[in-house]
Parts: sequence; structure tokens; C-alpha cells
Amino acid sequence: MATPKKQLHLTAFMRPVSLHTGAWRYPGAVPNANFSLPHLKSFIQKLEAAKFDAFFMADHLAVLNMPIEALQRSHTVTSFEPFTLLSALSAVTEKIGLAATASTTYDEPYHVARRFASLDHLSSGRAAWNIVTTGNPESAKNFGLDEHVEHSERYKRAREFYEVVTGLWDSFADDAFDSRSQESGIYFDPSKLHVLNHKGESLKVRGPLNIARPVQGWPVIVQAGQSEPGKQLAAETAEVVFCSPRDIQGAKELYEDIKGRAEKYGRNRDSLRILPAALVIVGDTVQDAKEKRLKLDSLVHYDSAIASLSIALGSDASGFDPDGPLPDDIADTNASKTGRAGVIKLARDEGLTVKQLAQRYGGYAGLAFVGTPQSIADEMEEWLSQGAADGFTVTFPFVPQGIDDVTQRLVPELQRRGLFRTEYEGSTLREHLGLSRPNNRFFT
Amino acid sequence: MATPKKQLHLTAFMRPVSLHTGAWRYPGAVPNANFSLPHLKSFIQKLEAAKFDAFFMADHLAVLNMPIEALQRSHTVTSFEPFTLLSALSAVTEKIGLAATASTTYDEPYHVARRFASLDHLSSGRAAWNIVTTGNPESAKNFGLDEHVEHSERYKRAREFYEVVTGLWDSFADDAFDSRSQESGIYFDPSKLHVLNHKGESLKVRGPLNIARPVQGWPVIVQAGQSEPGKQLAAETAEVVFCSPRDIQGAKELYEDIKGRAEKYGRNRDSLRILPAALVIVGDTVQDAKEKRLKLDSLVHYDSAIASLSIALGSDASGFDPDGPLPDDIADTNASKTGRAGVIKLARDEGLTVKQLAQRYGGYAGLAFVGTPQSIADEMEEWLSQGAADGFTVTFPFVPQGIDDVTQRLVPELQRRGLFRTEYEGSTLREHLGLSRPNNRFFT
Ligand SMILES: Cc1cc2nc3c(=O)[nH]c(=O)nc-3n(C[C@H](O)[C@H](O)[C@H](O)COP(=O)(O)O)c2cc1C
Ligand SMILES: Cc1cc2nc3c(=O)[nH]c(=O)nc-3n(C[C@H](O)[C@H](O)[C@H](O)COP(=O)(O)O)c2cc1C
Repeated sequence: MATPKKQLHLTAFMRPVSLHTGAWRYPGAVPNANFSLPHLKSFIQKLEAAKFDAFFMADHLAVLNMPIEALQRSHTVTSFEPFTLLSALSAVTEKIGLAATASTTYDEPYHVARRFASLDHLSSGRAAWNIVTTGNPESAKNFGLDEHVEHSERYKRAREFYEVVTGLWDSFADDAFDSRSQESGIYFDPSKLHVLNHKGESLKVRGPLNIARPVQGWPVIVQAGQSEPGKQLAAETAEVVFCSPRDIQGAKELYEDIKGRAEKYGRNRDSLRILPAALVIVGDTVQDAKEKRLKLDSLVHYDSAIASLSIALGSDASGFDPDGPLPDDIADTNASKTGRAGVIKLARDEGLTVKQLAQRYGGYAGLAFVGTPQSIADEMEEWLSQGAADGFTVTFPFVPQGIDDVTQRLVPELQRRGLFRTEYEGSTLREHLGLSRPNNRFFT
Repeated sequence: MATPKKQLHLTAFMRPVSLHTGAWRYPGAVPNANFSLPHLKSFIQKLEAAKFDAFFMADHLAVLNMPIEALQRSHTVTSFEPFTLLSALSAVTEKIGLAATASTTYDEPYHVARRFASLDHLSSGRAAWNIVTTGNPESAKNFGLDEHVEHSERYKRAREFYEVVTGLWDSFADDAFDSRSQESGIYFDPSKLHVLNHKGESLKVRGPLNIARPVQGWPVIVQAGQSEPGKQLAAETAEVVFCSPRDIQGAKELYEDIKGRAEKYGRNRDSLRILPAALVIVGDTVQDAKEKRLKLDSLVHYDSAIASLSIALGSDASGFDPDGPLPDDIADTNASKTGRAGVIKLARDEGLTVKQLAQRYGGYAGLAFVGTPQSIADEMEEWLSQGAADGFTVTFPFVPQGIDDVTQRLVPELQRRGLFRTEYEGSTLREHLGLSRPNNRFFT
């Protein structure tokens, strides 16, 4: 008997519904999809029908930090808050995981522990917590501060915050309510309630949490920090890692780095799934998919596009001829040599004009799979087999068509190859991801 | 043509599903109703079918502060968190209002404003915010403090918190997104975005909120503080007041007090609905209803019951003969003269033994309507016509039977008398309550 093939895991990046700035302007796209409950409901139901592992809500605690000229063109400016949206969507789905982002810098562990426990119970074990220390520095100003909390301070608090939240989830033993009896009047066994009494460097939280232990024991822990302390936090705590490598080589290094660190902490490599974010554009031919991408990029406003290109190059690009190729004699600055080399390589490889190049950076310049269902499945299979990823965090170019293309064309191809489930085998998100249920640290 | 009768408003107090400590032990009661999504879903659907104004979730940021001997008997110890539960229930209902409690002492205005705006959008205009300064002093210990924030400090922050939250809700003009155009690439009109820049005594919040203005302009503002600053906050800000008067006389005084204060602030008396909390027990005869209540009270454990009686009396009751009447010679202490007088009157009026009296105080000793559909409708009509209430916050003795009794027996009687709607006339909670939609303070 052949050993079963290693399986891909797929989560959908759904806030914003597309990371591509021009997405809402694409012909046929729903312009307000980020903020339309009927559309979001239909999207999650399509993703569940395709057996996706999870629906993922990023989160930001301020409008994005960009000049108003760019902000007025951004479809991210109004969005639902993750806990309220995912709870509503839990009522119209049955199996798909629900991953919410919550900040360890600008929230309280008691609130965070409680909301995730509640979402996990409401969804019968489908919640995941994307731990972020909050990227957007503007957030600080909405929470009484003038300056963003310093990076290492944020990660120190994050580590302790994780201890407190997981400790609060363990307030009740799994069987604390088994002894409930209308006859005797005992509602739960008080010897199965633990008072945390946490007193640490950044946090002081007594407990217990006023909610039973989550269905999954703990909701699945997700982490997406890219810095040194970010990778360290992932290695110590995360069960799913979202990341954004540029190519398969960078991905393999990151994969080894994080799994290696996790092993140092006595964790099994397999207790951690690494799912790079990838824009997926499906076409009838590779050429067709590439044209879709150029069309999509062309919807990005030139002013913000050229600003993005200047940042990527590390020198002002606004004087270049938009319709010509990237000049050869770009002044050498100290800003970002690897960044500039990447831009130059991209311009040559794809033969892009300055304008097209700018619109790539202003739209979405991260990892992308652009091709036919077959060619994309080939690439994904290669990433999986080479140890560059355990699956992907899929972001769509535009919706609903981008979702239909992935769920109706790419997923069947992955299923045909035995790389992706055709039915959910379990009912909790942990089961979809093949992760074990954590023991309660206070009770056995 | 006769002027239409003044209408009753009814909200259902649903966390806990019964305020009565013995509720979960009543024969036929669902013991884990507080924490069962399928049951809560069926309850809200029954309440919506009966055209209730709203489903109300109280909230506590700690397990209730009682000794473990009493806590182990309490059905409140595990509950869903309000935003997650109400969002899930918004997806299975269409008209009924969804009132969540959120603390101004142990939360951040940016989070609170955002979650309510999100719930209001998800529910198409059905959200309400019960502003509390948090009663349970144990909560402080879950948020890094040793002591509860001092009472006047809590109310000072609450008043400013309300300003900030409502200001954040007004971040976008109602028509800010009307100019959105796939053609031009403009997502919203930047001249219709307001940056709050609040700098006050307790709070500093920049804004703007990253979500469009709520459907209702602002979710409905609810308040339930009973102290002097509590009533003041209600008069200045609340559109619905929950309160717990003991009898119609006390209710009339409170009603006049709060509406009078509101008028001093230039508010219309009618922009404020006062809805006392009331336990409603329906029987085939008045005697039958009274027996249900005695039966329910008898399910309260004697140890916690006698402690509650001692507190109400202001002197130790544990030495009294449980099966005898309340002794005549209770030592006079300074503790609570009006409290004691009330206990003695109740014991005489209903001819209760010490044990029955104790179980009343240990179960639910607040306002109760106990009788037939007709007798209860008579009482409610009297409260309404005498200016003691604009309706009630109904708490059920046990569930589901207590909900069925109210929705299938009492409500039809109220409808027959023309006191309660037979159909929802509007679609938002403001419309159910007859409250106007607030203008945006920054845009006209
Ligand atoms: C797929 C993905 C999703 C992310 N989602 C969020 C998010 O929702 N909110 C947020 O503040 N940051 C988010 N981030 C940013 C990371 O949390 C992190 O702040 C960023 O990668 C910078 O790394 P560092 O914080 O370790 O310096 C995301 C990153 C990735 C790769
Ligand atoms: C019907 C009703 C519901 C209440 N719900 C809550 C609640 O959910 N959470 C809470 O902390 N306090 C709640 N309270 C308590 C009040 O907010 C308030 O703290 C209490 O009445 C004491 O008044 P004071 O705070 O003005 O001193 C409620 C009170 C009433 C009458």
C-alpha cells in the first residue's frame, strides 16, 4: 500500500476580501464585498463547500496609515470587527474554521480569552486566534498613547499574554460540569475550578474565566510575525504560521528556521503548520491569467503606485517615463539593496513598463500563483513536497470570481491529485489541521 | 376617533436566562440553558414571534462574588460573552433588538464603539448598548488592579466614554460612501470623514473609527445605574433605563425623577423609555402562580438563603426556627432600617416561614408579577397608565416554560387590550422603541 500523500491545508484570507488594492474595481467585482454580510455569507459557504480549513480575518485597530489621497481609494476603510462577523458566520456554517485576529498590545487577556472561548463554544470547536502585536503604529493613538509600544516590549507582553490567555482557558477542567444535578443542586464541581492568580512583568490577572473550557481545549494558535522575536514567538507557541516569503527558496529557509526552533523547545515539527500567504489568479491559459493580473494591476491609481515603487526601489521613481522600461542608471542609495535588486529583476523578467511595475507594487507585490489550475497545482505540490509550506493562506484577486476560480477549478484539481480533502473528516478546526487537543495544565 | 393607547415595551432579560437562583432546578427546566446555543436560539425566536422589543444580555467581568459553597450552585458561572452570542443570534432572527452590556470601566472606547457599530450593521440596525460601570468589584482583579475603581471615578469616566464612543460612531457621514465609483476609483468622500481627536480627563482617543456609521446612527443607549450619579448619567444619555423599583409607588418616584432630570437637560420626556425589571410568573389562577413561586423558591439552598435573609434584615437570622414565623423581637441595628421593614412586611403579608422568607431573598426578591394573564395584564396596564413605567424588562422564573407562559398567554392578553404590538412596524430597534435616529454631530 502506498503511503498517503502529504495533505495541503488551505485557509482563505478574507479581511480585506482581497489584499490587492485594485480588487474592488475589477469588472464584475462586488465593490463593497468587505462590508456586505450577504456577500461574506455566500463567500464562506463557497469556501466551506470546497472544504477549506478556515476563513481568516486579519484585523487593524485604526484606518490604514496612508495619506488621505490613497485612503480614499482603499476598500479597507470600513470593515466588520472580527468577533462579531465570525460569530454571525458561525451560525450559517458547520465545519469551516473561523480565525480571528486579536492584539496582545491593545487589548486585555481576560477579554480576549473570553471572546475566543465563547466563539469556540458557539461554533462547536472552530475558533483560532491569530496573535498579533499590531503592525499599524497609528493604533496607539486610538488607545490613549502618543507612540506605538516599542517592538521588543510588544513581543515581551505578547508572550506573557499568551500564557495568561491559555491559563484562563484552563480555568475549568473539561469535566467540571459533569456532576451537575438538578436533584442535588450542585452545578459544577468546585474542585475542578482553578484560579490563575497570574502576576507577571506586564500583566496581573486573577481569574477564573467565567466560561467553560473551550471545545478544542484551546482555540488554534496562529502567528504571523516576521521579525526575529516574531519567529521566536511562533516557534514557542504557534500551531499555524502565516508568513509571506517571496519565493520557494526563501520559504524553505523560513520553514526550516521556524520548525527547527520549535524542535529546540521540545515541540514536534508536525505540531506546527506553515501556510504562506499567496495571491492566486486562475486563467484558461497561463497567458490569460497573466493578462488578468495586468488588468487588475492597471486599476491601481498611478500616484499611490509610483509612491510604492519609490519605496521598493529606495529612490524616487516619479521622474521616470511611465511608459518606458525601468532606467538602467538608478542612483545607488543605502535604503534597500535587496529590495532594489528584486524590483530590477521583476522588471526584466516580466518586461514591465515603469507604470506596470509601479502598479504591481501598489497593488499586491507578495507571493502569487498565476496560471492554469494545472500549473498552479504543480507549483503548490512542489512547495509541499520540497518542504517550503504545509499549505497556503489564499488571497483572492477579486471576488466573487476569484473565489469561484479557486473553489471550482483549482480545488478539484488538487483533490484529483490526492493533495486536498474531498470531505471534512473531523468537526473541529484542530481536526481539519491534524493538530492534537491540548491538555489542561491544571487538571488531568 | 379614540387616541391610540400608550404602548408597552417589553425586553427579555436573558443573561442569566433567569435571575432566580433556583431556576435551573425547576421540574422541566433546561439546566444548562444559559450556555446552550440551540436553546438560546429557540428562546430568541419565541420572543421574536411574540414581537418583543429586545433580547438583553447582562454581563459580568468575573465569576459572581460569592463564597464557593454558593457559587457551585449558581447557573451563572459559565455563560457566552455578549457580542459573540448576540452576533450569532443576529443571523437567526430578523427584527428583535439585541442589547449587549459593555463596561466603561474595564474596556476601551475604540473597541466598544467598533463592536457595537459592527453588530448594528450585521443586524441591520438592532443593536443597543447597556452602559455599565461594572458592579462586581472582583472584576478589577481580572484587569490588573487590586481594587475596584472608585464609584465617582467610574461614573466620571463613563460620561466621557459615552462622548468618545458616540463621537467615534459619527466618524463617517451617513452618505460618505455614496460617491463610491469603480469607474473613478474613489471609495469614499474624504471630506465626509471626521477625525475625533478627543483629549479629555480620563481618555485620549484620536479616531476615526474604521467602520461606517451604524445603521441606527447610534445603537440605542441603555443605562441601569441606581445611584445618584447613575440616575444622572441616565438622564443625560440614556434612551432606555433598566431599573429595579420595589413597588409601583417607588417606580413612580423614580420615573418622575429621571424624566424630570432629562427635561432639565433639554431632552424630551419621550426620548427616554423606563423599563423596570420584573419577574413574571403566570398561573391558571393567582393561587396556582403563587404555588409555582413557592415551589421555585424552595429550590434555593438553605445556607445561601439564610445568608441573604440576614443581609436583608441587617442581623443574623441563622438562629431562627426555619419552620416558624419571623420572630417579633429582631434586634435593632443601624444596618438598613428600610430593608428590615420591607422584610417584616413581606413575611406578614404572605404568611411566610423563616425558611420561605430566606428562600425568597436567596432566589429573587425584586419586583414580581405573579398571577393569571389577566391579573398580570391589569397590573402592567396600571403601571403604564399611572406613569410608573413605559414597559418592562421581563425576567423568567425558569425556561423554556416561563417564556412560553409569557409569549403564549400573557402577550396575547396584552395584545387583545391594544397595549402591545401584534406586528413589528419598523425594522430597527429604534423604530420598535419609538426613538428618533440621532443626527451626526459633525455632518448635517
Ligand atoms: C498573512 C499575514 C497576516 C497578517 N495579519 C495581520 C493582522 O491582521 N493584523 C496585524 O496587525 N498584523 C498582521 N500581520 C502582520 C504581522 O503580525 C507582523 O506584525 C508583521 O509581519 C511584522 O512582523 P513583526 O511584528 O514580527 O515585526 C500579518 C502578516 C501576515 C504575513
Ligand atoms: C435590570 C438591570 C440590569 C443590570 N445589568 C448589569 C450588568 O449586566 N452588568 C453590571 O455590571 N451591572 C448591571 N446592573 C447594575 C447596574 O449597572 C448598577 O451597577 C447597579 O444598579 C448599582 O448602581 P450604581 O452603579 O449606580 O451604584 C444592572 C441593573 C439592573 C437594574
